[in-house]
Amino acid sequence: MKQLEKKVNQIAWDGFNGGNWQKEIDIRDFIQQNYRQYEGDESFLEGPTAATTTLNDKLVSLKLKERKAGGVLDADTKVVSTITSHGPGYLDKELEKIVGLQTDKPLKKALMPYGGIRMAKDALEAYGLKLDPETEYIFNDLTKTHNQGVFDAYTPEIRRARHYKIVTGLPDAYGRGRLVGDFPRIALYGIDRLVEEKLNDLDNYGDTEMTADVIQMREEITEQIRALHQIKEMAAAYGFDISQPATNTQEALQWLYFGYLAAIKQQNGAAMSIGRIDTFVDAYIERDLARGVLNEQQAQELIDQFTMKLRMVSFIRTPEYNSLFSGNPIWATLSLAGMGIDGEHHVTKTAFRFLNTLKNMGAAPEPNITLLWSQKLPENFKRYAAKVSVESSTIQYENDDLMRKQWGTDYYAIACCVSAQPVADGIQYFGARANLAKTVLYAINGGKDEIGKAQVGPAYAPITSEYLDYDEFMSKFDPMLDWLADVYVNALNTIHYMHDKYYYESAQLALKDTRLDRTFATGISGLSVAADSISAIKYGHVKVIRDEDGIAVDFKAENDFPRYGNNDDRADEIAVWLVKELYTKMNKHHLYRNSKLSTSVLTITSNVVYGKNTGTTPNGRKKGMPFSPGANPAYGAEESGALASLLSVAKLPYKYATDGISNTFAVTPTTLGHDEQMQDKTLVNMINGYMKNNGHHLNINVFNRETLLDAQKHPEEYPTLTIRVSGYCVYFADLTKEQQDDVISRTFHQSM
Amino acid sequence: MKQLEKKVNQIAWDGFNGGNWQKEIDIRDFIQQNYRQYEGDESFLEGPTAATTTLNDKLVSLKLKERKAGGVLDADTKVVSTITSHGPGYLDKELEKIVGLQTDKPLKKALMPYGGIRMAKDALEAYGLKLDPETEYIFNDLTKTHNQGVFDAYTPEIRRARHYKIVTGLPDAYGRGRLVGDFPRIALYGIDRLVEEKLNDLDNYGDTEMTADVIQMREEITEQIRALHQIKEMAAAYGFDISQPATNTQEALQWLYFGYLAAIKQQNGAAMSIGRIDTFVDAYIERDLARGVLNEQQAQELIDQFTMKLRMVSFIRTPEYNSLFSGNPIWATLSLAGMGIDGEHHVTKTAFRFLNTLKNMGAAPEPNITLLWSQKLPENFKRYAAKVSVESSTIQYENDDLMRKQWGTDYYAIACCVSAQPVADGIQYFGARANLAKTVLYAINGGKDEIGKAQVGPAYAPITSEYLDYDEFMSKFDPMLDWLADVYVNALNTIHYMHDKYYYESAQLALKDTRLDRTFATGISGLSVAADSISAIKYGHVKVIRDEDGIAVDFKAENDFPRYGNNDDRADEIAVWLVKELYTKMNKHHLYRNSKLSTSVLTITSNVVYGKNTGTTPNGRKKGMPFSPGANPAYGAEESGALASLLSVAKLPYKYATDGISNTFAVTPTTLGHDEQMQDKTLVNMINGYMKNNGHHLNINVFNRETLLDAQKHPEEYPTLTIRVSGYCVYFADLTKEQQDDVISRTFHQSM
Repeated sequence: MKQLEKKVNQIAWDGFNGGNWQKEIDIRDFIQQNYRQYEGDESFLEGPTAATTTLNDKLVSLKLKERKAGGVLDADTKVVSTITSHGPGYLDKELEKIVGLQTDKPLKKALMPYGGIRMAKDALEAYGLKLDPETEYIFNDLTKTHNQGVFDAYTPEIRRARHYKIVTGLPDAYGRGRLVGDFPRIALYGIDRLVEEKLNDLDNYGDTEMTADVIQMREEITEQIRALHQIKEMAAAYGFDISQPATNTQEALQWLYFGYLAAIKQQNGAAMSIGRIDTFVDAYIERDLARGVLNEQQAQELIDQFTMKLRMVSFIRTPEYNSLFSGNPIWATLSLAGMGIDGEHHVTKTAFRFLNTLKNMGAAPEPNITLLWSQKLPENFKRYAAKVSVESSTIQYENDDLMRKQWGTDYYAIACCVSAQPVADGIQYFGARANLAKTVLYAINGGKDEIGKAQVGPAYAPITSEYLDYDEFMSKFDPMLDWLADVYVNALNTIHYMHDKYYYESAQLALKDTRLDRTFATGISGLSVAADSISAIKYGHVKVIRDEDGIAVDFKAENDFPRYGNNDDRADEIAVWLVKELYTKMNKHHLYRNSKLSTSVLTITSNVVYGKNTGTTPNGRKKGMPFSPGANPAYGAEESGALASLLSVAKLPYKYATDGISNTFAVTPTTLGHDEQMQDKTLVNMINGYMKNNGHHLNINVFNRETLLDAQKHPEEYPTLTIRVSGYCVYFADLTKEQQDDVISRTFHQSM
Repeated sequence: MKQLEKKVNQIAWDGFNGGNWQKEIDIRDFIQQNYRQYEGDESFLEGPTAATTTLNDKLVSLKLKERKAGGVLDADTKVVSTITSHGPGYLDKELEKIVGLQTDKPLKKALMPYGGIRMAKDALEAYGLKLDPETEYIFNDLTKTHNQGVFDAYTPEIRRARHYKIVTGLPDAYGRGRLVGDFPRIALYGIDRLVEEKLNDLDNYGDTEMTADVIQMREEITEQIRALHQIKEMAAAYGFDISQPATNTQEALQWLYFGYLAAIKQQNGAAMSIGRIDTFVDAYIERDLARGVLNEQQAQELIDQFTMKLRMVSFIRTPEYNSLFSGNPIWATLSLAGMGIDGEHHVTKTAFRFLNTLKNMGAAPEPNITLLWSQKLPENFKRYAAKVSVESSTIQYENDDLMRKQWGTDYYAIACCVSAQPVADGIQYFGARANLAKTVLYAINGGKDEIGKAQVGPAYAPITSEYLDYDEFMSKFDPMLDWLADVYVNALNTIHYMHDKYYYESAQLALKDTRLDRTFATGISGLSVAADSISAIKYGHVKVIRDEDGIAVDFKAENDFPRYGNNDDRADEIAVWLVKELYTKMNKHHLYRNSKLSTSVLTITSNVVYGKNTGTTPNGRKKGMPFSPGANPAYGAEESGALASLLSVAKLPYKYATDGISNTFAVTPTTLGHDEQMQDKTLVNMINGYMKNNGHHLNINVFNRETLLDAQKHPEEYPTLTIRVSGYCVYFADLTKEQQDDVISRTFHQSM
């Protein structure tokens, strides 16, 4: 480091405890040396400042206006979004403590064609807007997008599997997302130091043979350096010189946010998560409080306004996309609390402050607040989180004890819904989902799609007997699962190759280590339906009804059979086996850039679309009916109460499904207890119990079915009613009728 | 094939002998079944038609105007050249029998930014033109070029080696070129059939694991199919439907030319060769002659006007590029004659007709006419070629007996100067040159550049003794050569990775087989200087004079020493060893896409620039003086006559240097004989002798030094004086003064 920089760092870093973070880029070490544990309660929290309230009112009214307008108020049709494409934009320049917009106006959607120009065009047209013809020419004729690359390489088999929706939601027409940048790096080190480190990495990468891998990585590092310079340029347009470290809390949040802003200007990934910044920011707040340059109200104001920025992020999408992920979520997932690997909890006042934003600015879907739960978190904090859950149903809980052990670090964060990711050196290649329920039907029907009637899977002999024989079924299910693993992994290998080629995330990856651990994510949908169907075949003496083409279109189980979700091992072990088996079969394959396979049991809201495209299944679920979300037991299958349901889901092995096992849980307030205190306490106990049994994730919704029915009838009375669906939070009013019905029809536990 | 297509093919193919070519894409088989050998003399040839002469006068006058204007009359500054970017353009629509221009006007240069936007910009600015800012923004900010990709991945070591010109001429800022499309495919099959075959290849490529290799190839096949559709669209703009096969000679030449035109609209490769089309076209001419729909004059008119198209091709280049390759060559290399692997010669009347274009339209640098020489070619043809050489010095000769054996096919063609390439299924990754003379100096100076003084190679201990010791030198030369091989191959691996990524040759490759044999070309410059220098060190008792930095700046050989070029094995074997040794060292490395290593001894005109950037060498060559071109003996080294010189060069092993061994030979007319007949005969004997001794290539110039000196003084009197430099033909007037001096100072053999 040069002399001048040293001096600046001395000022910026003055008052912090030193450590390895001073010598190397090491945010975790900075946190460990500087965060302040807090065991107290929420009584220290402050309400919103007048400025925050004014800004928030503005934003809410803009959002309601946007909803009324059908989802989009304004959008770019010509200017292509890059880190530096837009001049500064404000919600209210005078009042904003944290600045920076995706475009030049609040809620104005950016034009992001790199994922796919047709997707960008269709999205604009869905809102009555027209893509500029020259921009279209550029991306169609002069250069190429991720989407075109993918489709150029897809095999006919992959196209078929995609068309008949045995694999769905593949990120082949927009950003794959799911990368969590280590955004605090900008605040702690400033851009110049980060450039210096990346230049050093470039100098030391691949000195021997220029294989394709080495060439690719070297080009990527250079792109990262380019992105760092652009982030600096973008910040300069807002009047900030971020070449050097931040010197106080406001700057720290602002520097950090510029990193995130660059990411969302460059990428329209399904999930654009902010990471785990609470302890980092807390160190700055504590220092400023101690210096007397900040008081609690000002601290809360900064947290509120920073959070408001995360509430403003959005992308323009096509109707098809919206049918998968309703309410336009972007998973600005914010991970809070958790434990250190030294056994010390990471609860700070700032974790409280972030939860307090829900009170200060009302409930909102974003950021997707994720509480990293450990048995050892302070009781005050657990109770406060439970209280917020009961009040607003906006929090999800994830098992920090499980994840910390699995990932070997306490500096991971949740990307998207439930997927842990080491912030400094881990990335994930997002992989959407394969439909296991449909695979059961393909095994029965010899690879023919039960709805489209086409030969999609391999033309193995179908089952022709009147009653399904378990052994025969399994002998057919096994190769069909092999085929599914094959076509699915092939599709994903293609996608990630092309994404790196045409839509590389240089801004996010500039803020991570150069040498990365890569996870190849995959996902399962229809797990409970598949498990129950196999259980039906095994125990239920299932009779098949076939149509004139010989395709099984209905099933009648003549005997009762065990179902997943009742803590009955006969059914639960089928679900466990399915997860392990698909994992094992996918793991036979080449995985892009030698990444490590992972899977998830997570559907987001796509359970509805998956169900819509899947025929009647042997478990009795009728054609077109939604699957249950994520790892949830099938609708109507749970007959043994909340705890039995939780225990069943907790059996699914996180080791195989490190991408996450999502459980969306709804309970009526009175089930939890008759007063607030009791409700909070029961909720804490329930989460503790679930996690102790290795449950991974829990969305908690606390309300009555009647509330939802009323909100469906009178949406104007519930403009910001927020609920948790599979892996994210959404305004109930932003769901489609179909999805609202699905949420309403889910199990509301009324007994523990 | 569908019924309709069958019918069309019956008409288009009527009168041809059948064969495998009807079932599969197989131009070679068509040729074998249908070409007509000709053993007669040139007396059947016809002069130009009035239309040809009018067109040619127009073109020549435009070219002279262009030369007067400094090299460029007009150029696109905004419209990016793609296969379909321009509407039709003509020299004279009414008179042209073969149509199609690179842009909308003759000689107007196209804008080709994919190789490098800065190169495109600099080239325009060199001629006082300005690149459109939006186009610049697109290629700088929205997408990327080959050049930027390469420099993003280059190591500092590669950059240094490049900067100090120990490797030079790397295709890292423009198209790499050197791919010969199998253009006759369009004529024989029509685009639709080619699309069908490529779709079939796509269906059958990589059905198992989607590795990066498979994905890349699948995307490339799709790009090829896209290019085929675009070629059809481009032809349609000229009023031709090329979806079906050509039905006569004119169509055959036109269809074939559209393929080539697509290639030069898409790529600005250093070499854009047309291939080996003489026997193919001959089959059509013979059929039309037999049908009475064509006479000899018309046949010659088609050949003349087709050839005129090849004379019109040009790209806009930067001054730096021009200093490497003067006269704006594009190597529209046309390979003629040769033998079949069945022992039958491939001389047809059409080979004569192509040579006759030099008479009908005057000498011209393009197409770069290359005679594939075999001992067994008919004497009439050999003599006629020799006659043309004596008259116009525009032909190069290559050893078909050597190449046919090495490449295992008689359907290869010459790409660029001297590089053979199987037309149907072979491609070459062009690799420019490394400077062996400079490497000798690096070995002496411990990796320090003798001109720039920087540490470029590894900092091994320099030689410090007053006299060079051969063993000590060799112990230092060996690891320095290892280093050179390493950095050179690394640079080329990077270049070809990026070229495929940012500037893939979809048009040319659409017209070749999908499964290709790939050659990784490299090249040697300064071979004779290096060989003579090592010989000096071994035999000459060389004293070193060092400057104040300890760098050797001059050498004095106290004894005489053998020099390469005198048929003296002591020196010649050093040259042979150098070729094999560098090859062996490069062959240790990973080569892009598992291509097969090849090298060349070929400098084009870059021998001047290489010499300019190389210090004084132990063989006595002074700092900055040109190297001899290609594999030629060093200037002044030849003291034993023409035959000894030829025999020395013929010793270089083609097996290692399959990319070609270029020998540029100048002889005065009187040396060959005192009358024309004698001159032709001597030339035939000389070529026969050289080739019989496994000589690979011979540029033949027949003139007196005095002619060149006069042409230098009075260029206006010699506007189209054409000479052969290393591997191509050039108007003498288009060379720089420096290069003219170089040509003049070369050995003019005055004794055999």
